[in-house]
Amino acid sequence: MNNPDEAVIEVERAIVELGACGVQIHSNVDGKALDAPEYFPVFERISQLGRPAFLHPARPMQHADYLAEDVSMYEIFWGLGWAYETSAAMARIVFSGLFDKLPDLKLIAHHWGAYIPHAEGRLAKHWGARASQSADHAYGPLQDNLKHPVIDYFKMFYADTAMFGAQAASQAGLDFFGAKSSMFASDCPFDAEGGRIFMRDTIAVIDSLRCSDADREAMYSTNARALLGLN
Amino acid sequence: MNNPDEAVIEVERAIVELGACGVQIHSNVDGKALDAPEYFPVFERISQLGRPAFLHPARPMQHADYLAEDVSMYEIFWGLGWAYETSAAMARIVFSGLFDKLPDLKLIAHHWGAYIPHAEGRLAKHWGARASQSADHAYGPLQDNLKHPVIDYFKMFYADTAMFGAQAASQAGLDFFGAKSSMFASDCPFDAEGGRIFMRDTIAVIDSLRCSDADREAMYSTNARALLGLN
Repeated sequence: MNNPDEAVIEVERAIVELGACGVQIHSNVDGKALDAPEYFPVFERISQLGRPAFLHPARPMQHADYLAEDVSMYEIFWGLGWAYETSAAMARIVFSGLFDKLPDLKLIAHHWGAYIPHAEGRLAKHWGARASQSADHAYGPLQDNLKHPVIDYFKMFYADTAMFGAQAASQAGLDFFGAKSSMFASDCPFDAEGGRIFMRDTIAVIDSLRCSDADREAMYSTNARALLGLN
Repeated sequence: MNNPDEAVIEVERAIVELGACGVQIHSNVDGKALDAPEYFPVFERISQLGRPAFLHPARPMQHADYLAEDVSMYEIFWGLGWAYETSAAMARIVFSGLFDKLPDLKLIAHHWGAYIPHAEGRLAKHWGARASQSADHAYGPLQDNLKHPVIDYFKMFYADTAMFGAQAASQAGLDFFGAKSSMFASDCPFDAEGGRIFMRDTIAVIDSLRCSDADREAMYSTNARALLGLN
């Protein structure tokens, strides 16, 4: 992504020549947001090719949590910051109008859409009315720049189920995105048993969620097969 | 809080002389984290007086979301950042061992504990095993510095119900903190009807949650009366 022209060519090569099912993109590029104009051709090509992009968080310890500090303490950049990364990237994509420009773009947000379900109340009723408070970055009410209600855009994302066993928050993710846009993921292999713990815990959670058997089948298999072109 | 010695005296005056029910503390002090040693006497005095502290988020637009930027765009500092503030402050309080030093300290976290229920899986099983990756801020596995399992500390917080109508995430908050530690709040008066919208939406959500009538009574009234000394 530090060379967007080449990234467009590589996306094409990976998907068309090599049969890649999708493209992973990190939530920032060396600290830059994904709505920078130079990345638009990459998203455009992914959208044209009909494959999804997996939006993966990336945040280093050097991304401090406090303005008076220079590093993130106690692994907060990981424990809380990575999901903030995903959430902020989603907000940048929405408010910059990327889905209006590329309505067929398919983006998968990690950790069941991260903090977006928690922010649902603000998103649905209040965020769109806010305008910039900065003279250097002036814009009117955010909703005025978008075709659809703010909340609708956040529901355009697909979300994966990698929640490390958090049952209630998983239900919140499912309730927000719906079974049609939720897909199994576990963060395998990053646990002490090479991925088995995360898979086991995630399956236990999904099996416990309030939804239909068809919803569960969609999350475990059907959605991914359709989105990744595996049928 | 920029003068902790005076803050201790003011806490005493407000609670003992004037009958204050609690103390509001922002989630950072001019960009500094609340676990700095100079703030300990403030928390200590609040704890000794048996009243709670309301932990309120504070984050300015100048707190950028991306390392390559100098301001937060699209009101993300508000829409997502404030709840990150609360969550990060909770993590700093936990991992710095404040609850081990002050086991009777009562802290109320805004927005149903913010992002902590989402992070439950990491908190419960993985966060405590992580150690510092920085030579300048060296510490071993975080769990080794704490008396109880990491997850238990996050459940020591009280959490309020101000969620602006987010139903599923409210349920996640309730399931994580339990009715005994959840208390009604709405963010009144910060809406277009001077607080009526937030109150109405929050009551509708609480009335819809899966819990007992006794749980609802606890959240609406009993908990706050006990914690704030209103009985």
